[in-house]
Parts: sequence; C-alpha cells; structure tokens
Amino acid sequence: MPITSTAAASAPAPDAIAAEAPLATSAELRHLMAPRRVAVIGASRDRQKIGGAIFHNLLDCGFTGAVFPVNPKAEAVAGVLAYPTVADIPGAVDLAVVVVPAAAVMAVVAECAAKKVSSVVVISAGFAETGEAGRALQNRLTALVRSSGMRMIGPNCVGILNTDPAVSLNASFAARAPLAGRIAMASQSGALGVALLDQAKAMGLGVAQFVSLGNRADISSNDLLAYWAADERTDVILLYLESFGNTRNFARIARQVTRIKPVVALRGGRSSAGARAAASHTGSLAGPSAGLDALLRQTGVLQVDSIEDMFGVSQVMAYQPPPRGRRLAIVTNAGGPGILAADACAVQGLRLATLSPATRTRLAGFLPPEASTQNPVDMIASATPEAYRQAVEAVLADEGVDSVLMIFIEPLVTRPEPVAEAIRTAVAGTDKTVLACFMMARGAPELLRLGEGRRVPSFIFPEDAIRALALATAHAERTARPAGHAPELAGLDRAAARRRLAAAREAAGPDGWLTPDEVLGLMADYGIAALPTAVVSSAEEAAAAAARLGLPAALKLRSRVLTHKTDVGGVRLRLGSAEEVATAYRDMAAQLAELGQGAAMDGALVQPMQSMDQSRELILGMSRDPQFGPVLMLGLGGVQVEILRDVAFALPPLLDTDPDLMLETLKGKAILAPWRGWPAADLPALRDAVLRFAALVEDLPELTEIEVNPLLVLPEGRGVMALDGRAKVG
Amino acid sequence: MPITSTAAASAPAPDAIAAEAPLATSAELRHLMAPRRVAVIGASRDRQKIGGAIFHNLLDCGFTGAVFPVNPKAEAVAGVLAYPTVADIPGAVDLAVVVVPAAAVMAVVAECAAKKVSSVVVISAGFAETGEAGRALQNRLTALVRSSGMRMIGPNCVGILNTDPAVSLNASFAARAPLAGRIAMASQSGALGVALLDQAKAMGLGVAQFVSLGNRADISSNDLLAYWAADERTDVILLYLESFGNTRNFARIARQVTRIKPVVALRGGRSSAGARAAASHTGSLAGPSAGLDALLRQTGVLQVDSIEDMFGVSQVMAYQPPPRGRRLAIVTNAGGPGILAADACAVQGLRLATLSPATRTRLAGFLPPEASTQNPVDMIASATPEAYRQAVEAVLADEGVDSVLMIFIEPLVTRPEPVAEAIRTAVAGTDKTVLACFMMARGAPELLRLGEGRRVPSFIFPEDAIRALALATAHAERTARPAGHAPELAGLDRAAARRRLAAAREAAGPDGWLTPDEVLGLMADYGIAALPTAVVSSAEEAAAAAARLGLPAALKLRSRVLTHKTDVGGVRLRLGSAEEVATAYRDMAAQLAELGQGAAMDGALVQPMQSMDQSRELILGMSRDPQFGPVLMLGLGGVQVEILRDVAFALPPLLDTDPDLMLETLKGKAILAPWRGWPAADLPALRDAVLRFAALVEDLPELTEIEVNPLLVLPEGRGVMALDGRAKVG
Repeated sequence: MPITSTAAASAPAPDAIAAEAPLATSAELRHLMAPRRVAVIGASRDRQKIGGAIFHNLLDCGFTGAVFPVNPKAEAVAGVLAYPTVADIPGAVDLAVVVVPAAAVMAVVAECAAKKVSSVVVISAGFAETGEAGRALQNRLTALVRSSGMRMIGPNCVGILNTDPAVSLNASFAARAPLAGRIAMASQSGALGVALLDQAKAMGLGVAQFVSLGNRADISSNDLLAYWAADERTDVILLYLESFGNTRNFARIARQVTRIKPVVALRGGRSSAGARAAASHTGSLAGPSAGLDALLRQTGVLQVDSIEDMFGVSQVMAYQPPPRGRRLAIVTNAGGPGILAADACAVQGLRLATLSPATRTRLAGFLPPEASTQNPVDMIASATPEAYRQAVEAVLADEGVDSVLMIFIEPLVTRPEPVAEAIRTAVAGTDKTVLACFMMARGAPELLRLGEGRRVPSFIFPEDAIRALALATAHAERTARPAGHAPELAGLDRAAARRRLAAAREAAGPDGWLTPDEVLGLMADYGIAALPTAVVSSAEEAAAAAARLGLPAALKLRSRVLTHKTDVGGVRLRLGSAEEVATAYRDMAAQLAELGQGAAMDGALVQPMQSMDQSRELILGMSRDPQFGPVLMLGLGGVQVEILRDVAFALPPLLDTDPDLMLETLKGKAILAPWRGWPAADLPALRDAVLRFAALVEDLPELTEIEVNPLLVLPEGRGVMALDGRAKVG
Repeated sequence: MPITSTAAASAPAPDAIAAEAPLATSAELRHLMAPRRVAVIGASRDRQKIGGAIFHNLLDCGFTGAVFPVNPKAEAVAGVLAYPTVADIPGAVDLAVVVVPAAAVMAVVAECAAKKVSSVVVISAGFAETGEAGRALQNRLTALVRSSGMRMIGPNCVGILNTDPAVSLNASFAARAPLAGRIAMASQSGALGVALLDQAKAMGLGVAQFVSLGNRADISSNDLLAYWAADERTDVILLYLESFGNTRNFARIARQVTRIKPVVALRGGRSSAGARAAASHTGSLAGPSAGLDALLRQTGVLQVDSIEDMFGVSQVMAYQPPPRGRRLAIVTNAGGPGILAADACAVQGLRLATLSPATRTRLAGFLPPEASTQNPVDMIASATPEAYRQAVEAVLADEGVDSVLMIFIEPLVTRPEPVAEAIRTAVAGTDKTVLACFMMARGAPELLRLGEGRRVPSFIFPEDAIRALALATAHAERTARPAGHAPELAGLDRAAARRRLAAAREAAGPDGWLTPDEVLGLMADYGIAALPTAVVSSAEEAAAAAARLGLPAALKLRSRVLTHKTDVGGVRLRLGSAEEVATAYRDMAAQLAELGQGAAMDGALVQPMQSMDQSRELILGMSRDPQFGPVLMLGLGGVQVEILRDVAFALPPLLDTDPDLMLETLKGKAILAPWRGWPAADLPALRDAVLRFAALVEDLPELTEIEVNPLLVLPEGRGVMALDGRAKVG
C-alpha cells in the first residue's frame, strides 16, 4: 500500500514565532456548523444506504432548518420533495452533504459552486486514501472548492453534528444523536468517532459539536481548533488524530487555543506498529512519535494514552473547575476502595491532603467512633446521606484540600439516590474540584447533574477517577504557568556561522561530516561556550598547541570519515607534557596507517583537559525529520542516554519556557540538582544553550544532523562547555 | 487509631525451603464452603438488618441444603421455624453463621462447639479492628474455635458464597448472587468484595466461590489458596489483600498454587498513604511495598494495579487458553481502533504478528481491495459477519500468530449479533487466545459465550483488551518457566562466619557497626570473592601491606563510628608507592584529629587498586523488616541507585530462579549485557553471589542491615568482587 505524506507538499514557511501571531477565527465555519438550509446530494430512500441514513438522521434528530434531498431518480425522500440537482433547489443552500460515488463528486461540487453553496461535507470515499489517482482527484476537488470560496469537510468522512438546540444538526452516519453538552470533538477516524459518540452518550457526557475530519483536504483540525476556541458553547476540545499536517501552523494555533480552553488529544500511531497501520489507514505518515509528543507538550495540548483517559479527563474538565493543587481528600463508606484510591494517588502523583485538626474535630462530631477522620475519611458502611453531606462539606471547607473524591459502595441500607442528592447539596457553591465514584454496576445516579453545564463527574472504579483527576490537575498546573515568549538571544554571530558552515561544506562535500572543531566553532558563533580547540597537523604543532592551551591536554583525531574516534584509537587523554602530546600524535598517526586509514586523518585536535568534577555530562542534538523539520534532543550523558534512552525532545521554534519542559521529562533530572555534595548545575546557562542551539539549527537548514556530546553543565554560575561534537551537512 | 501487626506475634519459623514442601489441602474447608445444614445465629425478621439480610439471601438464592434461623425472640423467620439456640436444632449443623453483637459471640460459638458444628462464619464486628480489647476478645475466640476443632471465617466479614448448583450458598450481605463461573475470590475488605461481585456480574464474569476474609483470625488467604488449588470448579483465584500474615507460609503455598492455576492479587496499601489507610482499616500493617511486590513476583502471583486490570486479566485467564507467545493479530472493521490497539501493544510489550504471505493471500481472496491484509487487518466498514469468520479463521491458522483480537464498531448495516455468532464459529476448536472488543456502549452480545466454561472475553475499549492480554501473556510466560529449586551452595563456611560475626559484635556492641574488612570477611566466608584487604594501624604497617598486596593501592579509614568515609577524607585512592601510602595514613589520621574524630579511627584498610575497566558496579544489600524479616536489595551503582532508585527486591529464602527475577526488574539491566565494546558481565557469578548473600542474611539474624557497595561484576568468566561494605548488628 503506498504511503505518502500529506505534509511533504507544504513545507513549513519561515514564520514569526508561534504564540504571538493573532488567532484567526473562521466565520465560514459557523455557516458550516450552524446552517439553516441543508441539501443532501445523493439522499436515498433506503435507510440502509449512507445517503438514506444521513438524510433520515437529519430529520429524526430535529434539525431546526430545512433539508432538501437531491436525487434525480426519486420524487420524494422520506416524504420530503426531492430535487434532481442542487441547482433546482429554490433559494440559497448553506450546506451540501455529498453522498455520491467518488467519480461523480467533482460535477456535483461544481454545481454547488455555481449555486454559491457556502460549504460542503463530502462523505464519499475513493480519494487520497486509495492511492495516487485518488489523491489527484482530491487535489482537483480541493482546488475547485477553494477557487469558488467554499469550505469543505472531507472527503471520506462520516459527517458532522451540532447539538445546539437552535440548530440540532446531525448530518452524519451516527444513528443516535449525542447528548447536548460542552465538548467539541474532531476525529480523523470516522468510524471511531461514531463509536466515541456512542460511548460518550453511555457515560452521560454531552457533546457540543462533532466533526469527522476525513482526508482533511480543506478544513483541518487547525481550523476547528481556532473556531472552537471562540465558540461559547464549547468548554473542552477533543481531537483524535493519526497524522499532523503543517506542524508549525498547528503549534501556532494550539499554543493560543490551549490558553483559552483545554485541548485533549488522543493520537493513533504513537508506536511504530501503530504508525504503519495509520499510514495504511489514512494514507498519511504519522511522523516520529517522540517529535509529536514534544509538539503536543510544547503547545499545552493534553495528550492521553487511551480512550478511557480521554473521556475521563474530559468529564472533569467539562464539568468541574480546574484543580487548584494536588491535595486530595477522599470521603468513603468503605475502607477498601478508599485505600485503592490512596494508592492510585501515589501512582499518579497526587497527594492525600492532611486534614486540619478543626476538620477532624468537625468530622468526629457526627461520625461514629469506628470511623476514620483521617484522610481517606472512612465513614464505614452505616454512613447516611446526611453524613455524606456533612463530610464533603467539612473537607471542602478545609484550606488544605484542593479536590475531593467521594466514594460510595451500596451497603445494606443506604440507597445511592439520596447520597447523590446530599452530594449535590454539599458541593453547591464550592469552587473546588469534586469527583464521585459510585461503585455500582449500574453507574451513578442521574442526580449528580447540577443543572446547566455542571455536574459531579462519576466513575465506577476509584483508580479511573484518580487518573482523570491527575490529568486535569497536571493540565491546570501547565496552563497556570506564564505563557512562553520568543527568546531574545544576544551575541549570535550568524554571519560567522554561515561562513564557517559554507567552508566546512565545501571541505566535507554533500552528505559529508563536519570536524569537531567546526562543530565547536558553530557553537561559539551562537554564544555557546566551547572548549578551546587547536587544529594541528603534526606532532610538533600538537606539542606547541598543548603548551599554549594548557597541560594536561587531550589529543583527538580530526577526520571527516572516522566519526567514531574512540574505535580507532583516536582519543588520547591526560597527556601531561608537550612531549607526551607529540608522542601521542605520532602514535595515533601510526595506528591509523596500520589500520589502512592514514588518509582519513585530517590532522588532530588539541584541547586542554577539562575537569569533569562537579560537572554534569549532557548530550544536545538535532536530527531532521522529512515531514516536520528539525527535532531537538536533550539527554543525560552516558548510561542515561545509551541504556535508558532518557532523552527529551522539542520542535523548534522554541519559546523561552520550552527548555524547562524538556528538562522536566528527563527521568534522571535530579542529577542536575545539588547531589553528592555537588552544587546544582547551572540551569540558566543550560536553558540558554538549548535556545541558542535551537536558533542555530533553524538558521542553518544545511545541517542535517548535529550532536554536541558531551555538553558539560558546570556548577551554578559557571556556565556550560561544549567539549566535542559531530554534524553532517546535506 | 492503634496500629498493630498481626504477624509480629507469629515469628517466621525456620522452615524447609518453600516450594518443595507438600501442599496441604483442607477437607474442613469443603464442609465450610459446601455445607448441607446451615444455622444463622441472629437471624432477624427484618431484612434491613444484617441477620435478616443473610437469612433471606440464603433462602432467595436457592440454597440446596437446609437453613435454620436461631433467634430466641422469634417463632419463625421468613416462614422457617426458629430455634432459641443452636443447641435446639435437631440433628447436625455443618455451618453456623454468627450475626450477634461482639459481646455475645463467645457464648454462641461455645454453643456451636458443644454441638460439634464444623465451621463458623463470624459476621459480627467489634474485634481486632477496634483496638486492644477487641484484639484480646478475638484471641479468645480463636483459641476457642481451634481447641474445639472448628474452622472459622472472620470475624468482621460479610460472609461467603458458593455458586455450585449442587450447593447454591449465599451466606452473605450480597443481595444479588453472582453468575456461576470459574473464578474464586477472597477479599480482605468485605464491602469492596460485595461491590466487586456486583461488577463481575455486570461484566458477565462468573464466580465459583467468594469469601470475605474479615480479620482472618483462623482461616487465612493461605488456607483458601490451598483449598482452591484443588477445587475443580475453580480456574482462577483472585485475592484482594491489605496485609499479609506469615509471609513464609504464603510464599510456600503460593509458589505451588501458581503452578496449578493462576492467582491474581490486588493489594490495597501499595503506597505509603494507602498503607496508612489500610492500617487504620484492618488494624494490620501492610509492610513495605517493595518487599511485598517482590514476594508476589517470587511466588508467581500476578499482581495487578487496579480493579479493572484484575477483572480484565481474569476474564482472559478464566475463559481462554494461556497465550503461547507475544504475537497478536488484530481483525477490525475500522482503522482507528485497530491503530489504538497496535499502539497499546507497543506500550504493553506485545508484538503485532507479521502475517504470512499465504495468510495475506487468503485474506485478499474475500476482502475488498480497499481493505488492509496487513496486521491490523482492516476489513473496512462493509465487513460482513462472514468476512469476520473467514478473517479470524485465517489469522488463527497462521503459524506466526499467538493470539487474536477482533474489533467491531457498529457501522450502518452490520449488526453485532451475527458477528458474534461468526466469531463463535471461527474460534471453535482453536487453542489460541482470542479476545473481542465490541466498541458499543451496550457491550458485547451474549453470544460470545461458547458454552460451559469457555467464551470470548469482550472489552469495550481496545486498550483494555490489550492490557488484559499482556498481563495474561506475561503470566503464561512466567509459569512456563521451569520451577525454581532451593540452590545448592558449596563452600559456605558457616562456622567461620559465626565466629567472625561474634567477634565483630563483641567489638561493635549492640546496634554497632561492623568495619568494612569484617563485612568483606563475611562475604569470603560465604564464597563471595572479596578484594584482599589488610587491616593496619600505623603508617608503616600501611606501607608494608601495600607493598605486599600490590601497588597502586587504596587506603580507607577503618571505623565503627564514621561509616561514611568519604565525608571525612577517609578514602585515598591510586597511591602509587609505599611512601605515598604511609603519607596518606599520616594525613588521614591528622585530618581526623583535626575534626576532633581521632578516637573514631580504628586503624585503616589497605587494598590494591582494582581496575574498574569493563566492570559493572552494583550494590547488594539487606534490611530487616519487623514484620517479615530480611528484604534483599540489588541495584545498579551510582546514578542508577542514587537518582533513579533503580533497585530490585526479594524476600529470602531464594530459589535458584530468583536472582534472575530481580535482575529483570532493573530498568538499567542492559548495562550488564555487552555494551560499549565491553563483554557481557559475569551473570552466573552475580546470580551465585546473590544466592550466597541471601543464605548469609538468613543464617545470621544478628545482622540487622548489610550492604556490599560496590559489588563489582567482572566480565564473563571472571566472577564478582566485593570492594567495600557496611553492616550493623542488632
């Protein structure tokens, strides 16, 4: 099956840095999502056919505007007068839903264009997902749509929904309309989207709008992000994506949208096996997972790992205020699930709140002596609804509590409905986050709805509740941080770097390697401190350089061919005298000659020995992805990188807050803190170096890969120091 | 709330090594779980009371024997003639369920003893969980039960169930009897247990027997493990536990039971917060989590992290053959969920099977051209039930497939029931593992039942299906390994070690520290190679020792007080000559005198410098837990231990297979493999050293903690070498 990249065609344009450009909102999308007059081209009398199902769904779900079936062979569809073509429909048409075979789509859409239809939703399959011919057809379709000023969803999609009672649009396969609610959802997989709508309904989770993205020939998730950011009926945006188009546009838009409302993304194709499957599913390449993870993290999108997590956190975000901290109080009528919830807290990085003496006294005032007034507050099985009310009110009033989970197991006597009623009363007016866990097969009572737009999200298992709360808490912390800005970097000698690279490229040839001194030179040009390095081409020069730079010294092979110096005896360390340096040079040259690699030696490098004491070794690198350009990599040196693959990624352009995001994802980050009697590493200098490095790889697209290894981070106040490096030019 | 340990009273007896002792099965438990004549002492006419609920549940759930209400104040309960006391019941009573206030329990149980009742289930609360007085009462109760030859469940429990149609016993609070099935479940939390039964029923998961363990004064989970191992109606055993009694007994029994049928454990109190909550819940201490994790791993019990995982994997284990490998084929009618399943595979360590050309040809024979015959097999939305049957049969026939997940999303036309029917047909006769994911809110069709004892487990979300399969696969791999045996260790000079420790203890005093030479001496006594170490008490002796042992040498402080030598300048390395060694000795003594610590210096140690080249640094240690004795710790040195806490634990006695289990849990274990041009580490020698170390800490209970750090593991064939160590005597 041919795999092609949707994004390769549109190379990222050099743009102003992401988050500060204005967010375009699209009035056209409003016409699309809230049309008054809808034509279904290919409406069928047979409900088992797609054209029939969509037309009937429009009628059955109570669309508040007018629907017009277009079917040259039928007089009427479902009792509604049919028209042979869209041109025959009297008056304007806002939206045309196209359900004809792929080969007929161009003609039909041309008719729509002629009639000045605002938008089309092309359900029909048979386009880019089928191969090159389909892709060509799709390109013609897109060109037609764009040249006529229309907007298009699809092709190859299952349609759109809008539950706004003023609209009630179900122009989709989904037989069961979702509950109205505050979540907007876009799915690159149509079938999955419909299944997700079904699940959302089962969980009582309301949906504002749903869009099946299909092949995204015109309208993309970027357009929808911008539109939903401004949509006042939407509180949370969910995305199911299998590939990304223009990652720079996505970054620019998503960075702004996530400051306005939460965006939750589930990404299909995170693994290489999944990515292969996604490529054959949507005909577009997912791209390297680590880079896309980084992209989402940098933009503030909350990435989840499963459908359950997506719904879980969305419930919390849609219906509850953001958690203000990590301190959770648990109120339960059974010990076991309270303990499991406490365990889950620890796993998920939440903390059990320490209840104040006043709160504990208040709890003791109405709980039996066998109950526990510590957190988890175990009210034991005899707890009445009134006890639930008082206990939840008491812990909500505690200054040390940020969020509350109430757990209910149905004991012999107490019924769940009055408990739900009591919880409603207890949480009225609180601005803390409250979740419920009714551990009953039939789920939580409907009573947990608190009226328009609010309710207590309920879970069946305590672990799921805690995971959802932890995700919501992490997201709240993330958005509470100050927004990042484009960094201001002084002392970048771009001209010198360009000259240096041009010369190196000349010497290296296409796909050639730079020498370490050239790499360190580039670092120095961009204001990243590098170890003094002399290029020498004889034993005598080596000895002189060592005497000049300082002893003891290191001698390293300089070669554009042998880039793994150690393997060929190309690194000699701790040379104590000029004589030792000279001897080492001769020895190295002889050894290479013996290996038949004498010609690969392009002189050598002399450096003073750098003390590693109190310094942390890091690796800073970049590789270029064919789809979305440079991917930065930062890792802890040695075992950390080589065995544990403890590395962090980011996609440029970086904001000044991005280096910290990278550092936070390193498991061994504690090595940078004071440790073993060492002072902390110089983090400001490290952040600065990462930003400079990012600017360098952006400015010099000829660099196809580059790695500074090791990048020493010295103790606080002493900066960083690049010791060695490799790089390749394209 | 007082926290006391149930286990402290019963110190582990020195026993023969675990898995080889015979497994006792208990005929008494058969009387308990399958009684013919049951008395309910405290049976009430009021169903809202516990004594009423249990009596009615017994009647309502169709108990096949006879039930006798005991209630001195009622003539009849629920139409059944009541008796004033158990003594008044004509004929024998197999089981008495006791539901009277705690204060009345002793008298009632004494009457049971007098009547030769076989077993009692004491529902009543008010015993050890309430504090010291309750614990004393419970001890008297247990003594009475044991002296009269009865067995007891409880006190403080919610009862027992047995769904065997020949018995149909529901002597519990649980109003809704579970479905009959192949899972036996014991829960230390009664309320949670009842909620779990409710959930199991909702998931269509059948239960063979359920026991609420309560305070486990007599019958423990160990007894039930042994009993259920032999019970032919039980295929899978589930345990919810918050504490462990005698861990040695548990290890001995569980090691055998897990070779017969899977045991799945969910442990409440895995986190320290959860453990505190568990302590106040059941009045018993959970113990350090890492040690209990190790205990479960060593015994082959499958520990799960959530209720959902417990049920998920139990479904697979109860109804499907164990997966024979990690290669999964996915058959779906929608791309999205197939991709998410593939991603989940990668996360969970399963592999997407590579389908053979023959299989792909076979699939292409009936699938439309738009379908994907690669794995995941995406049959697209038009897939008929017949296509499901053929596709599942095709991938099941592929040699390269170990298990199959079929995914179904309800498209426009195809209904789920015929698909389920088709799956049934396809899987008939296969001995591979098959799971289903019907992504529908209303769940999977009932048709997935395959008749007595078999069915295709179904999940709503693909990620849950994959997690359950991965757990089942890991467990199948674990049990497919050869059983471990008690290691045979030659050359243990126990007498020498005892003498050495006695002398050291004499010198160190109570709670005193051993010197490194003493620790290394113990290693040598147990056949673990230690670096030659001379104890010296003057500069001259130091110089002479260095000359004798080899130069360059290391000089280390010898002290029973200053155990962190580096902090006080107590380590001098790479001393090149005897003079340097002498100077270093004088210098060290002077520096300590300056610090006012001259008296703490008890001479020094001289060692030859050991080359670290190609050697891995590990740490091997033991600390003693007040509840369950020695806990062994093995970790990778340096950053791995200090920053990443990458350590593995085990509880002695170790089987010969246990060191590998420890090594497998180390994240950085790849450091032991060939790496950076180094040959692999000497793993056989490392395993041997761990077993010897375990024997040492078992033999020498006076050692309260000990750590060998570093323990060098040399390259293959060259053994290990203990370089330094600390230890404390009690």
